[in-house]
Amino acid sequence: MVDIIANLQQKGFSLPDPLKPGGAYQPVRILKGIAYVSIQFPFLEGIMRYQGRLGAELSTREGYQAAQICSLNVLAQVHRYIGFENILGLNHLEIYLQTAAPWDEFPSVADGASLLFLDALGEVGIHSRSLFGVERLPVNAPVALVTTFTLKT
Amino acid sequence: MVDIIANLQQKGFSLPDPLKPGGAYQPVRILKGIAYVSIQFPFLEGIMRYQGRLGAELSTREGYQAAQICSLNVLAQVHRYIGFENILGLNHLEIYLQTAAPWDEFPSVADGASLLFLDALGEVGIHSRSLFGVERLPVNAPVALVTTFTLKT
Amino acid sequence: MVDIIANLQQKGFSLPDPLKPGGAYQPVRILKGIAYVSIQFPFLEGIMRYQGRLGAELSTREGYQAAQICSLNVLAQVHRYIGFENILGLNHLEIYLQTAAPWDEFPSVADGASLLFLDALGEVGIHSRSLFGVERLPVNAPVALVTTFTLKT
Repeated sequence: MVDIIANLQQKGFSLPDPLKPGGAYQPVRILKGIAYVSIQFPFLEGIMRYQGRLGAELSTREGYQAAQICSLNVLAQVHRYIGFENILGLNHLEIYLQTAAPWDEFPSVADGASLLFLDALGEVGIHSRSLFGVERLPVNAPVALVTTFTLKT
Repeated sequence: MVDIIANLQQKGFSLPDPLKPGGAYQPVRILKGIAYVSIQFPFLEGIMRYQGRLGAELSTREGYQAAQICSLNVLAQVHRYIGFENILGLNHLEIYLQTAAPWDEFPSVADGASLLFLDALGEVGIHSRSLFGVERLPVNAPVALVTTFTLKT
Repeated sequence: MVDIIANLQQKGFSLPDPLKPGGAYQPVRILKGIAYVSIQFPFLEGIMRYQGRLGAELSTREGYQAAQICSLNVLAQVHRYIGFENILGLNHLEIYLQTAAPWDEFPSVADGASLLFLDALGEVGIHSRSLFGVERLPVNAPVALVTTFTLKT
């Protein structure tokens, strides 16, 4: 647990306060050894840090940074509601991107999330992945992440 | 089981007939204690009750009601193919919304589904959640739900 | 294993080489008896075989064929990283479609994938399903699939 936070700090990141749900759901649901983490956005300290469509209002570089913040918010939920020491592995990473055609740099943005999980969690952070361009995300977010984790017990 | 149907009736709802799949798939797939429920729409008695985009042809209030009907269709599948008494818990709720920018009241529509699950199932209905705006849903549906459940055994 | 490949050959299909991930993720992630397969596209021998939106640049028939190729790519990953003999069942099939309104033949395209899984895997290939129209897929793909499998052990 300490190592993961130290890993992040070495790379200039710190765990944000976990986001509170904006509705009648839980940030994390745990049943029989699987943790389902609610959708996470590039929200920090009460502000959506990036807003707009990739390829229009936002660049691929900004999308990459937005995806990093989403990952930090996932890790903040894991830290608060699961505990890093209880995770066997990240399963699958779903990445939703608000895009404007003909922008087509999906993997370059998605790797912002994938690499942060690998940097922070090491082998525990290995995962499969899916991604697609959505019509719209809440609060005009350019990126959002959905993840599940398998627990040790 | 009777309690859940009674819970719904107290709030003015009744379980519809479960929708038949519109293709070569099953309404519910159960493997090793997880039930995967196919996508459910605001379909009742052979009619898509709401059609259009939230923020254009449909209001947030209509979206909320459409989300309620989707949830009732999920519960109808659970009742038919799983049995309420066999459910340990709802895991995660995915909500797809057909939206027209700049509409941005995602949680207000999604809570139509989340609250109905909580009302009907109590603690069993607690869940994590994700949502996004899609380009298009079948039959011009404004909302659709995908859920998984963990079973007791 | 041989039977599945023979099943496919009888119907004129062969397993392609499994796609290499286009980023910092794994094609298949296996944890505690569940295999999570990364998103698969209608990619064959280094070429995206179909590109465009269903209902605009592409017909429903072309979408059906694109969905078949996606399924073959899923099976290629299963063959390489899991082994057909280790699969208890396909769980759920997610289908993302790049659509142009008012096109509305979702099930006709999705059945290209569903039927191929049933043809190849028999009862093991039974599944629940979800689908929706996305704003955009990578490399202008018209269809993409995400699947999970439950393993025997």
